[in-house]
Amino acid sequence: MSENGGDGPLPGVMPGRIPENAPMPADFAPKELARALLRETRTATLATLDRNTGHPFASLVNVATDTDGAPLLLISRLATHTANLEADGRASLLMAETGKGDALAHPRLTVLGSLAPVAADSADVPRMRERYLAQHPKAKLYAGFTDFAIWRMQVVSAHLNGGFARAADLTAADLLTVTAA
Amino acid sequence: MSENGGDGPLPGVMPGRIPENAPMPADFAPKELARALLRETRTATLATLDRNTGHPFASLVNVATDTDGAPLLLISRLATHTANLEADGRASLLMAETGKGDALAHPRLTVLGSLAPVAADSADVPRMRERYLAQHPKAKLYAGFTDFAIWRMQVVSAHLNGGFARAADLTAADLLTVTAA
Repeated sequence: MSENGGDGPLPGVMPGRIPENAPMPADFAPKELARALLRETRTATLATLDRNTGHPFASLVNVATDTDGAPLLLISRLATHTANLEADGRASLLMAETGKGDALAHPRLTVLGSLAPVAADSADVPRMRERYLAQHPKAKLYAGFTDFAIWRMQVVSAHLNGGFARAADLTAADLLTVTAA
Repeated sequence: MSENGGDGPLPGVMPGRIPENAPMPADFAPKELARALLRETRTATLATLDRNTGHPFASLVNVATDTDGAPLLLISRLATHTANLEADGRASLLMAETGKGDALAHPRLTVLGSLAPVAADSADVPRMRERYLAQHPKAKLYAGFTDFAIWRMQVVSAHLNGGFARAADLTAADLLTVTAA
């Protein structure tokens, strides 16, 4: 009896239904696909921990990436997700490719890590701000407001779902680019 | 000094930046908008609690609604999010309207609650399955596989972000329709 329980003619090709030891298609390059999703996705779903109830809380954010690929957010402390992050920085970002047909047929990446605000006087802020605004020019309208700050994700791991029958667990090293110190 | 800290000419109109006591536009009807998002969104981001690390884990799911509006999922126990839910049913679903321009200008709803599997022999299963498959006909390919089950969300509350300067917290009663027992 197979791990799929012998329950059909399409083992392993259904959404979210990929046994850990299933063979992946030969043209599936998880690291390359994950790096592309990380660097090209401009809007993501942020999951934080609700500071009142502990529920995972999903919200929409715009996202950019730092030089090494680490996700950068520009968020207001007046927003619910920011209040959640101030209580517990653990988070994930879902970066999904969109397209026609069944959404589950398209690749998406869950990046897990911890988000922390970057101190306003940090030497890293000008670079991060420039990168964020290059990717989100309209954010210039509010980037200077005192309730907004850049938050950077320290990536811990990631889970790639490349569409039906394609999945991989990845490390931070798989995703990020080594940059000069 | 205002709650916005006097930091610009556009108080309260920026993403995620809505003070709790800010006046909402007269044409903003949160309950109607939230009910429409709940009943018309077919793909959502699911946030669960990672069973190993406690991180909030964001993944993509197709979603349908039960008669009263409660979200229904059809998910495999081979998927990461399902394993997370088996350990802790607390979850949220982000249901976002998509469209042109800045994603943050479009309405989206975070529905918080607990997800539980519906027993295969429950008298509710035929109705739920029919509703799910009517909304996701391609799921007929795998709906009968033994690792798939319908999960129903017991809604606790919701947070609506209707786009810039429009937000509301909602109760389960605001979202759901009273149905005959």
